[in-house]
Amino acid sequence: MKRREFIGKVGAGAVVAGAAIAAPAVHAKTKIKWKMVTTWPKNFPGLGTGANNLAKLITEMSGGRIEVKVYGAKELVPAFEIFDAVSRGTAQMGHGAAYYWKGKSEAAQFFAAVPFGLTAQEMNSWLYHGGGMELWQEVYKPFGLVPTAALNTGVQMGGWFNKKIEKLEDLKGLKMRIPGLGGEVLRRLGGTPVSLPGGEIFTSLKSGAIDATEWVGPYNDLAFGLYKAAKHYYYPGWHEPGTTLECFVNKEAFDALPKDLQVIVLNASKVANLDGLSEFTARNNKALHTLVNEHKVDLRKFPDEVLVQLKKVSDEVVAEVAAKDPMSQKVYDSYLAFRDQVVAWHDVSERAYLNARAL
Amino acid sequence: MKRREFIGKVGAGAVVAGAAIAAPAVHAKTKIKWKMVTTWPKNFPGLGTGANNLAKLITEMSGGRIEVKVYGAKELVPAFEIFDAVSRGTAQMGHGAAYYWKGKSEAAQFFAAVPFGLTAQEMNSWLYHGGGMELWQEVYKPFGLVPTAALNTGVQMGGWFNKKIEKLEDLKGLKMRIPGLGGEVLRRLGGTPVSLPGGEIFTSLKSGAIDATEWVGPYNDLAFGLYKAAKHYYYPGWHEPGTTLECFVNKEAFDALPKDLQVIVLNASKVANLDGLSEFTARNNKALHTLVNEHKVDLRKFPDEVLVQLKKVSDEVVAEVAAKDPMSQKVYDSYLAFRDQVVAWHDVSERAYLNARAL
Repeated sequence: MKRREFIGKVGAGAVVAGAAIAAPAVHAKTKIKWKMVTTWPKNFPGLGTGANNLAKLITEMSGGRIEVKVYGAKELVPAFEIFDAVSRGTAQMGHGAAYYWKGKSEAAQFFAAVPFGLTAQEMNSWLYHGGGMELWQEVYKPFGLVPTAALNTGVQMGGWFNKKIEKLEDLKGLKMRIPGLGGEVLRRLGGTPVSLPGGEIFTSLKSGAIDATEWVGPYNDLAFGLYKAAKHYYYPGWHEPGTTLECFVNKEAFDALPKDLQVIVLNASKVANLDGLSEFTARNNKALHTLVNEHKVDLRKFPDEVLVQLKKVSDEVVAEVAAKDPMSQKVYDSYLAFRDQVVAWHDVSERAYLNARAL
Repeated sequence: MKRREFIGKVGAGAVVAGAAIAAPAVHAKTKIKWKMVTTWPKNFPGLGTGANNLAKLITEMSGGRIEVKVYGAKELVPAFEIFDAVSRGTAQMGHGAAYYWKGKSEAAQFFAAVPFGLTAQEMNSWLYHGGGMELWQEVYKPFGLVPTAALNTGVQMGGWFNKKIEKLEDLKGLKMRIPGLGGEVLRRLGGTPVSLPGGEIFTSLKSGAIDATEWVGPYNDLAFGLYKAAKHYYYPGWHEPGTTLECFVNKEAFDALPKDLQVIVLNASKVANLDGLSEFTARNNKALHTLVNEHKVDLRKFPDEVLVQLKKVSDEVVAEVAAKDPMSQKVYDSYLAFRDQVVAWHDVSERAYLNARAL
């Protein structure tokens, strides 16, 4: 590890010096080698491959002046230690999801997914043109990290259930793998949220150790074979309506880059963000078709009665997160004000159009 | 003009030679100066500023190795001559909308907006991960142009009407400013589509020379003051559900760039695409709030009966475009197959979620 850190620092230092004079000539002589640690297994569909795509974009856009090597979870540091690892400079970049870091800052959760919160398009608008990104930078600054939005899954699915959910009472006693705020909402409605790593979900559901699980969406759920473990596939994914995956960069390493490479790193994230959502959409299309037509999955909408209660409790749970500290309250206030306005606009645009097309 | 073309060619030539040896050192000595001609008035809100943003991104990401100067409509060539101008190399880049070029190729229309077609998120997914971009390249290749998607307005509004639309018959005899395929749909339902440049819309609507007009969405419509000319503001914008604005690059100039600058030009467009949609969403939020709360606009949904007929006729009109030539049919087949799958997926994700949130 020491040797790697040393190389990283020499690379960065050489560039700082170079930045003062004619930058391109100096770049030709130095090559910056960065490490990206991730919370995903290496090459994990959509998420791990999204991290790979970001690394590739940075290298290609910089004409090879930065090379980013991607490490899967555990290859360099365990999944949930990447935040600290990048903070202290063991690696220069991390790729994960901000809700993993609520132990560092409760406010971080608003930058990943909020039950009944913003969709992908709304999230991007809040981040890039609604003040969200500035707040995210403020939240990560004490940790010496520069955050970017680097991928979005779009609206996820509600999950796989081995019994039907026909009324609110059906949630009572339900053992469901559902982490985070969504899990807390389920708990308040009488269910038992269970935390399980991805690798144990299938077996637990198949054996009946859990009654239900959420995962991501058709693309990832098909790959996991979850249709073999539970009959009913519920929608919509009220708990993760447009999950943003993140990249964060060690601030010292970032500041040491010449201006054009800083711009490239930030914009490569935007490209990866758009690419990722576009890819998830295309792959979910096909996977849903396969699940329904080949595997005869029972696709079901949560009853309105259940959705109304889930939203009511979700809003309470999210407001409680906000009340925990002033920074969380500040982020929540911005998020909520944006949600109110975008809901009004999307009611007459996105939502009204999608409904009109379906008539 | 001759002198400008000469400078452009010398710049490009120097880079080609340089590309064979160590690229960065050569870049330091040459600066590529490109011209971008647009169909928009200089700095026109959202669209002209989107072109400016793309030019700025290319310059910043390339560390100043390419400088792009943006020309508003008529500054260098008239709005609807930019396609030819970039094709022949008078300028290196153009910024417009593909449906303007149906005289060159009917198929071009599929890359801008299709009545009852794809939303922004769906359009990006088709272009980047559904084969759409490869088809667009094929359509523009005979003209020596490389296309990119460079902005998206999101779902537009249905338009401003000085009388209520309560049933299908209300469209009969309606004189409405609505160009392109949407206009043809209106014509078949008994209306009279009128073509008017932006600058004449307000006066024509105010004087009663026309009964209705579509324009873009709250942000642009507020800026035009259309609420002062007609009472009723209808949604959704069935005729433009996620309009893609384009950039196209002269292929010879593009091919002459070193690989990393080619990558930067293409990815700067993706960034501008995401930025533009994010900005339109944020600004539409605010403008709608102002229109409804300050200007007391009468916001109305088209009746379902009307929407059903608009969709039926739209699908007929679009299929007729496809039948005009083999290339259009090829693009239509790809577009329609993608729409079928994404509608199924978004019915249980985006649409189901937006409806659940509104319960």
